[in-house]
Amino acid sequence: MFQDKNIPNTPISDIGEFELIKKITQPFKIDQKNTIVGIGDDCSVLEFKNNQILVSSDTLVEGVHFDLGYVPLKHLGYKSVMVNLSDIYAMNGVASQILVSIAISNRFSIESIQEIYNGIKTACENYKIDLIGGDTTSSTSGLIISITVIGHAKKNQITLRNGAKPNDLLIVTGDLGAAYMGLQVLEREKAVFKVNPQSQPDLSQYSYCIGRQLKPEARKDISSVLSDSKIIPTSMIDISDGLSSEIIHLSNASKVSFILYEDKIPIDSEVIKTCEEFKINSSIAALNGGEDYELLFTINQKDFKKIKNNPSFSVIGHATNDINENYMISGLGEKIKLEAQGWNSTKKSN
Amino acid sequence: MFQDKNIPNTPISDIGEFELIKKITQPFKIDQKNTIVGIGDDCSVLEFKNNQILVSSDTLVEGVHFDLGYVPLKHLGYKSVMVNLSDIYAMNGVASQILVSIAISNRFSIESIQEIYNGIKTACENYKIDLIGGDTTSSTSGLIISITVIGHAKKNQITLRNGAKPNDLLIVTGDLGAAYMGLQVLEREKAVFKVNPQSQPDLSQYSYCIGRQLKPEARKDISSVLSDSKIIPTSMIDISDGLSSEIIHLSNASKVSFILYEDKIPIDSEVIKTCEEFKINSSIAALNGGEDYELLFTINQKDFKKIKNNPSFSVIGHATNDINENYMISGLGEKIKLEAQGWNSTKKSN
Repeated sequence: MFQDKNIPNTPISDIGEFELIKKITQPFKIDQKNTIVGIGDDCSVLEFKNNQILVSSDTLVEGVHFDLGYVPLKHLGYKSVMVNLSDIYAMNGVASQILVSIAISNRFSIESIQEIYNGIKTACENYKIDLIGGDTTSSTSGLIISITVIGHAKKNQITLRNGAKPNDLLIVTGDLGAAYMGLQVLEREKAVFKVNPQSQPDLSQYSYCIGRQLKPEARKDISSVLSDSKIIPTSMIDISDGLSSEIIHLSNASKVSFILYEDKIPIDSEVIKTCEEFKINSSIAALNGGEDYELLFTINQKDFKKIKNNPSFSVIGHATNDINENYMISGLGEKIKLEAQGWNSTKKSN
Repeated sequence: MFQDKNIPNTPISDIGEFELIKKITQPFKIDQKNTIVGIGDDCSVLEFKNNQILVSSDTLVEGVHFDLGYVPLKHLGYKSVMVNLSDIYAMNGVASQILVSIAISNRFSIESIQEIYNGIKTACENYKIDLIGGDTTSSTSGLIISITVIGHAKKNQITLRNGAKPNDLLIVTGDLGAAYMGLQVLEREKAVFKVNPQSQPDLSQYSYCIGRQLKPEARKDISSVLSDSKIIPTSMIDISDGLSSEIIHLSNASKVSFILYEDKIPIDSEVIKTCEEFKINSSIAALNGGEDYELLFTINQKDFKKIKNNPSFSVIGHATNDINENYMISGLGEKIKLEAQGWNSTKKSN
């Protein structure tokens, strides 16, 4: 679980939970001018003046969303923040605060909890986020991290899922499928390790995929790029469950359908090579694999010229005025109906 | 776990988690005009104009904070909301939204999850709260409910823990110790039931204590009473861990100390009778028992006349200019140093 194997393992009972909270929260500093009161009172106090407020929660459960057999605790802390920030960025907003609730069994030491919070702290520093509250409770088994993220945006910039119009262009940031293939590699290595604990695998040829799985980055940059280009997307969502299921979410919310072109889906060359090795169709990895935390959005066609040369964006399809008729046109010209096949066992109500 | 024993037990896998979320969230309606977008997008959107925003999280873990052996699921849902609202009221604020994250193992049926949400819904209706998000995930064992509550208040009304001044009066709402004694009764009946499952105990003589334990109410009413009386408390906290530990929190935050008078602590006559039966000192039940969710606050002495006839309030002591010298004057005139002895295994960072 640790990256550094020489870290001691002190039981929580050695210092008690009040001291633990102090140890954990002390390294966190308040940076945001809209955080008026941080940790330490019954509530924290925030002030956003003329902005609207964005709020979302996401929970990661050991054995369901992560496997400590191959996920370093620090990465887990980092990723649990990314998963949440991504929801704010998917509204075209600025993320500013998080509350972190951790339920943890007594098989975890003080150092292991600190390691999770080290990852959370790195995420907060990299993304300019204030930790403003939460709690640490005992659990009867395992580890559960539940985070609430708060952000803000001007009313007219907030982008919901429901604004796509027929003929809008469907655009995705970055590339897809890598996090899913990273998981395949890690699962395989875990199985090998079980049989032969002495194995020292060389995973360098999968470094991009594994990095995308263990330490994803949320697309904080996109809202600035869009705003600099004077584009407000007509609809937007983040890709946590796979491209197919997110397209269907936009389709349902906006009451339009989408045509997706298989050969336009951006897939990294390492993903393609890894897919060949695993005998997985790389389009399926992008469509049904999840956890890429890229953004999927629609823009009016007139805005196309403003972003066409930006390598962060791929136009992968367009909206039609049908209802519930989402299709992919395959590389061979076949028309394949898109189905929701999220692989994540969390079903969010927002 | 159910109050009505004839409810069926349908496994979640019968309908899948997407359908479950639909079933759960559909009965909830948005009432608050400051909820702009509720459940259904990546985030919910709120707008508070000139108010500051209050945020807090609290988690309840099966086997740590509650025992389904005697806690009905509907009451559990209700109580988990109360625990959170209480933090907003302790800031002299108005609670308006919650996000609910539930991690639940597959031993729970659809009906049992609905029962929890029925309790949450009743709480939302009684307290005018919008459910605006959260998630439902599988857990490897047990049930964990993590709630984030959002509220608001005018900047000059928000009451922190740190404003008490020497000579301020220390006031508590309602009465104390009943929730703790309710827990003692329930624990005893559980032990009896283990030995003799046919036992049909008559618990009517403990109804107040049991009600306070299973279905506490947060003091929403107090901020209106204070505001009608034109009082802004100098400091405030809610009583979740017991009077003693909350007094010490106010003392530490405000850099004053408190003298508490034992014979002024408000204790219901049923609590006194139950304490006699259990051979527990009723002051100890009030000082160290928790979960009363009453409010503890300080006011300037000049405000005393405005509230002296209000039966909701008991003046139980006053602040001094000492540091870390909190004492109770016992009924016999002894001076006893107050110690933090919270009994709740959750340690909140806010």
